[in-house]
Amino acid sequence: MIISIILAHPDSDSFNHAIANTCKDALFNLGHEVVFHDLCRENFDPLLPRNEFEKDAPLPQVIQEHCDEIANADGIIIVHPNWWGMPPAILKGWIDRVIRPGVAYKFEEGDCGESIPRGLLNAKAALIFNTANTSDEREFEIFGDPLESLWTNCIFGLCGVPNIIRRTFTIVVTSSEKQRVEWLSEIKSLVEHTFH
Amino acid sequence: MIISIILAHPDSDSFNHAIANTCKDALFNLGHEVVFHDLCRENFDPLLPRNEFEKDAPLPQVIQEHCDEIANADGIIIVHPNWWGMPPAILKGWIDRVIRPGVAYKFEEGDCGESIPRGLLNAKAALIFNTANTSDEREFEIFGDPLESLWTNCIFGLCGVPNIIRRTFTIVVTSSEKQRVEWLSEIKSLVEHTFH
Repeated sequence: MIISIILAHPDSDSFNHAIANTCKDALFNLGHEVVFHDLCRENFDPLLPRNEFEKDAPLPQVIQEHCDEIANADGIIIVHPNWWGMPPAILKGWIDRVIRPGVAYKFEEGDCGESIPRGLLNAKAALIFNTANTSDEREFEIFGDPLESLWTNCIFGLCGVPNIIRRTFTIVVTSSEKQRVEWLSEIKSLVEHTFH
Repeated sequence: MIISIILAHPDSDSFNHAIANTCKDALFNLGHEVVFHDLCRENFDPLLPRNEFEKDAPLPQVIQEHCDEIANADGIIIVHPNWWGMPPAILKGWIDRVIRPGVAYKFEEGDCGESIPRGLLNAKAALIFNTANTSDEREFEIFGDPLESLWTNCIFGLCGVPNIIRRTFTIVVTSSEKQRVEWLSEIKSLVEHTFH
């Protein structure tokens, strides 16, 4: 299998990086091909310009490569912190530019974009790993856990990925070394179980 | 009153621009001072770097000015399209960099960031105007309308703004000129009613 890992955290010493590296190692051990993007280190440009709106718009080479990779992936792993109930801007922009018409979804002939699109992604499963400093109770009760619907319904559900699993690790800022090791062990198991 | 308008759409001919300009004109007519930011035209840099995480971090001048303005605003108007249940990346990055500790919220002494912060914004009201190409029914039932909780609970609620009003205009892509004129008229009334 080919699995794409998309990581978005500006600190290369972050727990998000530890999560992404744990996923990468587990996938290598399973014999899979891994496409790994550390968006911050790669200085990914998150700004969708007006001239990339249309389905057949010519794309910069780096965006075209991202599109080809995500269209071909058998599985996708997303790793990012919960910032304001959303991904960091760099990953939001990756969504805006890469999860695009003709790559991740399409509208039927004659549809101007007002109807329900059809998902095009090849991936059979997507794993989303989030970190946070808000308790699960507060995230669910006060904020309504927007990342759950964003990733499962708005994005990967719409794009046709049948199996979407999301886990949030919290509270990271005061977590112990022991707790983080346990979390990474849980992540390794979940990756192995999903992409065996 | 001083009202900040934050606009995020890459097409200067967009309906989002028409909305923001309608707000600006209505506020001028009411005698208010308007601080207007067209983030795309200003090439706002949306990437929060690691060295801006801490409350007392030194900030680039443009970010410091955004922070001073939003802290001092008596009212805030946000205008953006619904892209994947979220704002475009450029506005997500404005949130990441400008709605920051010490400006928009604070943690109590001795809190590492794991507890519930206190809102600091001065604004008494925030208006959020969104455009979309999804029906209201599908937005609510399939996607759970994530922008509602994002703006009212995650962002402006947390930052202490007591009066938060959000309106979505949909379906824009197939809307008639007559419909858009009616929408702009509704927006003008809402701005006048909120900031009379």
